Amino acid sequence: MKISVIKVGGNIINDEQALASFLDQFSALEGPKVLVHGGGKLATAMAKRLGIEPKMVDGRRVTDADTLEVVTMVYGGLVNKNIVAKLQAKGTNAIGLTGADANIIESDKRTGWEIDFGFVGDVRKANASPIIGLLEQGITPVVAPLTHNGEGQLLNTNADTMAQATAVALGQAGHEVSLRYCFEKAGVLLDINDDNSLVPVLNPQKFEEFKAEGVVADGMLPKLKNAFDAIDASVTEVWLGKVEGLLSKEPVGTKIVGS
Amino acid sequence: MKISVIKVGGNIINDEQALASFLDQFSALEGPKVLVHGGGKLATAMAKRLGIEPKMVDGRRVTDADTLEVVTMVYGGLVNKNIVAKLQAKGTNAIGLTGADANIIESDKRTGWEIDFGFVGDVRKANASPIIGLLEQGITPVVAPLTHNGEGQLLNTNADTMAQATAVALGQAGHEVSLRYCFEKAGVLLDINDDNSLVPVLNPQKFEEFKAEGVVADGMLPKLKNAFDAIDASVTEVWLGKVEGLLSKEPVGTKIVGS
Repeated sequence: MKISVIKVGGNIINDEQALASFLDQFSALEGPKVLVHGGGKLATAMAKRLGIEPKMVDGRRVTDADTLEVVTMVYGGLVNKNIVAKLQAKGTNAIGLTGADANIIESDKRTGWEIDFGFVGDVRKANASPIIGLLEQGITPVVAPLTHNGEGQLLNTNADTMAQATAVALGQAGHEVSLRYCFEKAGVLLDINDDNSLVPVLNPQKFEEFKAEGVVADGMLPKLKNAFDAIDASVTEVWLGKVEGLLSKEPVGTKIVGS
Repeated sequence: MKISVIKVGGNIINDEQALASFLDQFSALEGPKVLVHGGGKLATAMAKRLGIEPKMVDGRRVTDADTLEVVTMVYGGLVNKNIVAKLQAKGTNAIGLTGADANIIESDKRTGWEIDFGFVGDVRKANASPIIGLLEQGITPVVAPLTHNGEGQLLNTNADTMAQATAVALGQAGHEVSLRYCFEKAGVLLDINDDNSLVPVLNPQKFEEFKAEGVVADGMLPKLKNAFDAIDASVTEVWLGKVEGLLSKEPVGTKIVGS
């Protein structure tokens, strides 16, 4: 099967119009597909309304029990189910999932760091077979950024990593997978403020150069590491860019090329 | 296929120990099965924490936009996903769904009443084929009390009716379905305070007598109407009773017999 795995971030989730436009384009995308969505700011806003203070340790955000409750409600319920209902209205037979559902993504509670991140999970394993079973039924999985440890515990999990693990598992199961990370930039940019400075193809050598030169930094680093891990594992193609570029028939953005 | 459709109500959802015990018994139940769960008091508590006042019109609770947001978070997210994670830990490959997911249950926004119930849906149609597809993959659907209208709108929906519609659709698709409504009583009771006054078999004639005599009243009336509708449609057997009775190999409770 040729499968598209589309990751969409919080900036699109947060913006009603951007989300509507994304869902139109996602719905129009042909062939079997999987959507992995980030959380967005709704959880922070909901936590604030509930009087739950963001818990930071050494400048890092920690998912305590109250915060886990909020992200389970907001990501797994409010955001995920509204996306599903909207996709249904567009004729896409969506099904909303966390990693716990049909056991598609298992994780381990993060340990071994100097700080305790709380209920945060690092992906242990994505299981291709339930996802393929759904795709074969013409059903489109819509995955929220939550996983489980197999012992009854839900865990807050990075959506980029979940998308990568899903794409890799589908690739390893023998499918041709196109993984596309949609975010607010046109792709990897030589000048972060200039969409015209797009790097159309990025290979590991150039990535190392860009890191050394500071062309890529901050949030782009883990995103690109995910992208290279995917292409080096089993994923046929990996792209980064804006929704309108990546969801067109011939993707426009930065194409990641393996070593 | 022989399929069990188990409805479990808010009283069990609200009580951590009762829920754990129920999930043990549900997990141990052999064969393909579907769980439909009610909402419980968590949504009311969460609405209160968010400063959302219960909206009543003519003594009836109304689901306004804020309340719909809360039930989507609590029923579709918090309650549903925690049940799924706990079932996974017990070796049951659960998948959490609302009616919107895989389009399993469509509804119409309630109209034609003297009052406007807001975002409440009356079941229009349950679709057996996605449910059967999941069961054939060894996956156990866990259904939250929310549906959609097919036009992008989620709707708050009665879980008893959702269980009935699901059972009927599976029956009409040619499967042998056992529908079991678990609640806090041993079944239909001659004396509501005496579990020993259980009516083991209830047929429509006796139901009419009991209604006239006031033996059944209030919340039992719609529950029993649902039960008779199911048995009169296509469901092989319908039971009402306590978890420990209904989930044993030979169910103990009130068995509904059709006309």
